[in-house]
Amino acid sequence: MDKPLILVTNDDGILAPGLAALVDAVKALGEVIVVAPDSPQSGKGHAITIDQPLRINEVEAFGPIKAYECSGTPVDCVKLAMNVIGSNRTFDLCVSGINHGSNASINIIYSGTLSAAMEASLEGVNSIGFSLLDYSFDADFSPGLPFIHQICQQTLEHGLGETRLLNVNIPTGNIKGIKVCKQADARWVEDFQQGTDPRGKHYYWLTGRFENGSKEEDSDLKALEEGYISLVPSMHDLTHYRAMQSLKDFEKINI
Amino acid sequence: MDKPLILVTNDDGILAPGLAALVDAVKALGEVIVVAPDSPQSGKGHAITIDQPLRINEVEAFGPIKAYECSGTPVDCVKLAMNVIGSNRTFDLCVSGINHGSNASINIIYSGTLSAAMEASLEGVNSIGFSLLDYSFDADFSPGLPFIHQICQQTLEHGLGETRLLNVNIPTGNIKGIKVCKQADARWVEDFQQGTDPRGKHYYWLTGRFENGSKEEDSDLKALEEGYISLVPSMHDLTHYRAMQSLKDFEKINI
Repeated sequence: MDKPLILVTNDDGILAPGLAALVDAVKALGEVIVVAPDSPQSGKGHAITIDQPLRINEVEAFGPIKAYECSGTPVDCVKLAMNVIGSNRTFDLCVSGINHGSNASINIIYSGTLSAAMEASLEGVNSIGFSLLDYSFDADFSPGLPFIHQICQQTLEHGLGETRLLNVNIPTGNIKGIKVCKQADARWVEDFQQGTDPRGKHYYWLTGRFENGSKEEDSDLKALEEGYISLVPSMHDLTHYRAMQSLKDFEKINI
Repeated sequence: MDKPLILVTNDDGILAPGLAALVDAVKALGEVIVVAPDSPQSGKGHAITIDQPLRINEVEAFGPIKAYECSGTPVDCVKLAMNVIGSNRTFDLCVSGINHGSNASINIIYSGTLSAAMEASLEGVNSIGFSLLDYSFDADFSPGLPFIHQICQQTLEHGLGETRLLNVNIPTGNIKGIKVCKQADARWVEDFQQGTDPRGKHYYWLTGRFENGSKEEDSDLKALEEGYISLVPSMHDLTHYRAMQSLKDFEKINI
């Protein structure tokens, strides 16, 4: 049987230590192809590039493993991997990350890491976004790597149940185990740093702090706080099914 | 009682005719403030700008209505509207659009229009993204405007039931009425136009076609095909709840 084909991508860019760590965690599981942005793309969400051409360069960054840097967003990278670089191949797994910083809770909607994984899941590929709760460039990814290896091995062997997308966050320090969770309800409290540039024009620079919401028992934030890896099955259907019935009055509108 | 305060934004930019049409549809319902990107931002999803400063310019584009163009993404515009421009005010409604082109089905995850509305909904504001199924610059928005007016009026008076976010798509031609729907399961089939630039370097330019999936009876694509406005209650919780139980084996992993 052919070795599984694994696409590795991220949003921190081809040079991020988290990407190299993820390659290390999965390279024994199959044939790995790396397709990552040529510059940091944090906060790009599910953005795609439609008004500009994209570029691909093969790079030698991971020894014998094929690797490419692309000029677009994380989602662009996945589209290029599937339609250009690996157009004659079928990927068995897509892993994205390891993100430098949390993508738990509401962070999933801003995250290029998770959007890349979601894009691959839309194409029918089991996909997992991995993030470490440490934003620093020289974060220590090593405690999580054996877990990542096992999660990916289990996914290749047994699939992802009823979903095709996992949002996996890894706590710092000692890891107690893994918990299947729901996305916690939390939010960012934004602020803008205001200033004046060298030419005398005002500017506004986004800043903010993450406000932990209710850490319900089965939420990702709660699991992480307790030292567990959180594993949230996710999906691209944003329909608020429960709310459908409550909106029936809108169907009475007529002109 | 104070007049309702309505934030109007979009992703096609401050000069898009769809934005002017949306202002026309809602301006009689309250005090309107327009905050829109200074350039087209289609396909930007939930991207935010963290590595650059943002700019705000007041513009006179809508007569007596206060209007501002911003240098960022649609989500940036909403953050600036709530934290800088209207920081001492409380918005009663946020409307985004009218998008030139469909945001039905899976398009919601790529759409700057809907991401802007979702961002406002995260801040507790009832929010609606409006899109017309016509990509052309000079699309005829007029048949949908009375419906938009009524949908917004009803939202201001009675709220949005159990949700805070609606994805509303409007068919071209004669409109039969409104249907509350779920997001259809469909996908884009991508391709890349390949070429060589004037300096001899290869490029790849994203293209593709929308592939209508199963048009289930209560889906937005089905309603639109039948000439109805589709109204999908949406949310930011991406948890695939049904799948949680099917992943319990992952909790057995230990190192």
